[in-house]
Formats: sequence, C-alpha cells, structure tokens
Amino acid sequence: MLAYGELLAFDRMAADARLAPDLPRRAVLSEMAGSEIANYRRLQDRLVQLGTDPEAAMAPFRAALDSYHDQTEPKDWLEALTKAYVGDSIADDFFREVAAFLGPEDCQLVLDVLHDSRYAEFAANEIRAAIAADPKVANRLSMWARRLVGEALSQAQRVAAERETFTDLIIAGTGDLVSVGALLKRLTSAHTARMGAVGLNN
Amino acid sequence: MLAYGELLAFDRMAADARLAPDLPRRAVLSEMAGSEIANYRRLQDRLVQLGTDPEAAMAPFRAALDSYHDQTEPKDWLEALTKAYVGDSIADDFFREVAAFLGPEDCQLVLDVLHDSRYAEFAANEIRAAIAADPKVANRLSMWARRLVGEALSQAQRVAAERETFTDLIIAGTGDLVSVGALLKRLTSAHTARMGAVGLNN
Repeated sequence: MLAYGELLAFDRMAADARLAPDLPRRAVLSEMAGSEIANYRRLQDRLVQLGTDPEAAMAPFRAALDSYHDQTEPKDWLEALTKAYVGDSIADDFFREVAAFLGPEDCQLVLDVLHDSRYAEFAANEIRAAIAADPKVANRLSMWARRLVGEALSQAQRVAAERETFTDLIIAGTGDLVSVGALLKRLTSAHTARMGAVGLNN
Repeated sequence: MLAYGELLAFDRMAADARLAPDLPRRAVLSEMAGSEIANYRRLQDRLVQLGTDPEAAMAPFRAALDSYHDQTEPKDWLEALTKAYVGDSIADDFFREVAAFLGPEDCQLVLDVLHDSRYAEFAANEIRAAIAADPKVANRLSMWARRLVGEALSQAQRVAAERETFTDLIIAGTGDLVSVGALLKRLTSAHTARMGAVGLNN
C-alpha cells in the first residue's frame, strides 16, 4: 500500500508542480515528488526480496489510492501544497502507527521512507504566507483540507472493508477495537494540531 | 539552459511514465525523472552561488525547450523510451561538448549531471525487445526518432539565433565555424551509432 502510495504520489505531485507560481517553487515540489520515487524503489526492492511480485502486491490498493487522487486534484498551487501538507502528513502518521506492528527491519524501512519534514515545513511556510497576505485564503483552504481528510477516510474504509488481512494486522497490532479507536484519535489530534499550526481550522 | 532542460525533462518524463505497460516499468521512468530533478537542484544551487537569479537565467531558454517537448509528446511507451534514448542522448552529447569550454568546476558539474547510462541501457533494451517481437516497430520508431532530432535541431537554431552569447561561447570554444561544423558532425555520428545499436535507421 505504501509502495503504490509513493508511486502515485510521485505522479500526482510531479503534475501538481506545474501549478507553482515560479520555477524555483516548481522545483521544490518536483524534488518532493522525486523523493517519493526514491522511496518507492526501496519498498519495491524489499517486496522482491520477500519473494513477492511488486505489481501483484500493490494491486489491491490501486483502486482506493487512485480514487483518492482523482477526487482531490488540486486546482491551484495552494491546494497542491495543502494536499501535500495535510494529506501526506496524516497518511504518514497512519503508516508510522502501522509500522510498529511489523518486524524491526520492515518497521525501520517504513519509518525511513516517510516524508522528509523539510518539505512539510516548506508547504507550511507557503500556506502561512498566503494567509497572511489574504486572510480569506484560510477559509478556502480549511474547506479543502476537510475534503482531503474526508476523501482519505472514505478510501481507507474501502481498503479496510476489502482487505481483511490489512484490518487484521491493525487489530492484532493495536490489540482490540478500542485501541483502533485510540489510534484514530491520535491521528485526528495530530491532524488538528497541524491545521492550527498554519492557520487553518478543522 | 541545462537547468531548465532538467526541470522540464522531469515534468515530461514523469508524465510519460503513465504510458508504461506495468508498474515496475512505470517506476523506472519515474526514477529517471527523479534523477533529472536532483540534477536540477545542483545546477540551481550553482546559479545562486554565481549570484544569478535562476528564474532569470533560465528564461531565455524556456520557449525553445517548451516547444521541443510540446512538439514531441510521446503517444505510447515506446515513443517515450525512444525520446529518452535518442533525444536525451543527443542533448547530453551537445552539453558534454559545450562543457569543455567552461571552467573546470562548471565543466565537472555539467558532466556530473548528464544522464546516467543505466537508464539509456534500460530504454535501449526495451526498444530492442519490442523490435524483436514485431519488426515493423523499427520503421515507426525510426520515423519518430527522425522527428525528434529534426525538432531538436530546429529549436537549437532558434536558441542560437536569439542568444548571441551562447553562439559566441560555442564559436569561441571550438575556435571557428569550421569547428562548429565538426562538432555537429560528431553529434550526428554518435546519434547514428545509437540508432543502429537498437535496430533503428537514420
């Protein structure tokens, strides 16, 4: 799931980079995309090492991840950055939680390939500056962020419903459904804090 | 020119990767794009170090490079690979020649950021396999390659006509117009050899 997520994030972020107002900014989002594909390579290599066919291993997650991106195509630079900041961070938090249920080697690999915080910083600074220049931007981007999270949750439920092994891993990892609730609460709190940090409201 | 070329190559190659017949192949072209943007960063950093505004430094080359890519948008996977193999290699040869006229530090930087030969190998192998499976492919791709080179030459002439400092650099570097002719001849010979190596004709 993470491997296909990286491959797709590369593709979408590379396209979103065209929305940048100037070439140096375009380059930063392009580099952000570039780091996704470098991470993808590490995950694919690990899948091969485990004797799995990467294409087959990724197949069950394609529809949900494709849908998420199809439903959340940014229309401008700030929407693209908000997507990178809000969407990728919440996904990262989720993968970080799940990584804890894996063996030490795979856990470390997942933690290694999660997003570099300097890109989140770049996105956060751009969003803050845009809101400072025009406070009305905050409302628009807050609505956009809510849509991103809603769409992500809807696709996550789809994966959970279709993939019992995935749900089982999380339930086995957390211990019970109460703990799954606690996990969701941690994800939500971190998300709310991130929104507040750039002047968006949840 | 090379910096903008890398930034744009990233963008186009990332989009072309969607044409891949499977995810692992798509990932290879995506990685190839990723290496372009890493190279871009090195060139941009050098431009900043030289006290130049990167955006302004790249501006004179945008129209010609944009046109080249607009006129040579691949319609399928083999066209995308042929573009990467034929187009990028001839551009690399050109930049390699011009690099020799720069100071040692910039010369080394340009040589460093030129394409990794393993990607050219990947493209060449895919093209060879496609021709082996269906010899008619060779004709179609040969025509496509000629179009790529024609479009590249036409845009190169445009840059040369508009940018005297660029033309002056090459004439000063080669010594005279006769040597410019020799340079073009070297580029053409290397291109012809590459075409033949994968079963295409010039």
